[in-house]
Amino acid sequence: MTDIDEAEAARHREKMKKRKEVQDAEVASKAIAEKGLLIVHTGKGKGKTTAAFGLALRMLGYGKTVGVVQFVKGAWHTGERDAFAAFGDRVRWHSMGEGFTWETQDLQRDVAAAEAAWAQAKALMADPDVALLVLDEINIALRYDYLSLADVVETLRGRRAGLHVVATGRNAKPELIEAADLVTEFEAVKHHFAAGVKAQEGIEF
Amino acid sequence: MTDIDEAEAARHREKMKKRKEVQDAEVASKAIAEKGLLIVHTGKGKGKTTAAFGLALRMLGYGKTVGVVQFVKGAWHTGERDAFAAFGDRVRWHSMGEGFTWETQDLQRDVAAAEAAWAQAKALMADPDVALLVLDEINIALRYDYLSLADVVETLRGRRAGLHVVATGRNAKPELIEAADLVTEFEAVKHHFAAGVKAQEGIEF
Repeated sequence: MTDIDEAEAARHREKMKKRKEVQDAEVASKAIAEKGLLIVHTGKGKGKTTAAFGLALRMLGYGKTVGVVQFVKGAWHTGERDAFAAFGDRVRWHSMGEGFTWETQDLQRDVAAAEAAWAQAKALMADPDVALLVLDEINIALRYDYLSLADVVETLRGRRAGLHVVATGRNAKPELIEAADLVTEFEAVKHHFAAGVKAQEGIEF
Repeated sequence: MTDIDEAEAARHREKMKKRKEVQDAEVASKAIAEKGLLIVHTGKGKGKTTAAFGLALRMLGYGKTVGVVQFVKGAWHTGERDAFAAFGDRVRWHSMGEGFTWETQDLQRDVAAAEAAWAQAKALMADPDVALLVLDEINIALRYDYLSLADVVETLRGRRAGLHVVATGRNAKPELIEAADLVTEFEAVKHHFAAGVKAQEGIEF
């Protein structure tokens, strides 16, 4: 676009003016002030955990403290974990998983790991310093019935005012979605694994 | 789950063993080694930019350098920007936007801002230190024809080997999706704005 004539510029101005009116009215309509949100990232697409860590980063930018409990991951090393080290004890990181369930092949061990992770999550929820808590892959633990869904939903509903919680993982339970304020479904439109590209540093881990 | 009998544990073990075989075969089938990916985050759901910044964080954890060019945002202050300051000059941050198009209501100014942002993006693509480049909200600039789609797609296709690029924003152009390696659609299942909760620190900005 190099040449913009006056008529076109005027039409654009008019259109955007109307758009702004709609936008401003929407913002003004927000009745409830701030609220600690229960956020769910689900779906088969890539980015659920990554987006949760992006939110954590944003909170850290405001000088706040965040908690991370990983329900499945744990055995391996990840880039975000090293990056979060830059924020010292403002990131409370707990990798409580034993790897994916098809790695351990041990039901009793998976259940014990999930229960320990959930106990850790509850402790972080009770800590008034924590502004945002990431429950990474808790949906997997719920899907396999490693945790009591009723207990998890009830505890999350009863979280202290102001605490934001992000629950990630595929196949979020309907009861969790019902309790949530914000739910995003990550849908895979196209994936490089299908084209034969392997998992690589900085992208997948 | 408190009582797990032996038969149940054995069934679980057998099921997960099969699952692991499928998983291992899939990993082994990846023929192409590492590749700089063109990633697109689109859709109406929340988290597109946040997930891109999560990827940037992961890269920073590996000691790499990332570039960020914001095509729309710029006027306002965000938490992630402050957080990235912890990584010094390993984050090359350029907010080149003038705000949303309905704020400026000035077509010529929007086009000029988009072109300046794209020139900055090209400079970062040429810099061998940059491992990941986030083109935040470039889809908005493309949607309004502020930039030449052909030029953008051709330049991105011709990126240097190993460079990962993430393009964010609603309504990604089909030509961009065609050129991409990884595309995630962020679908809004439930949004707290609809329930009257306003934008708040650490969550929306």
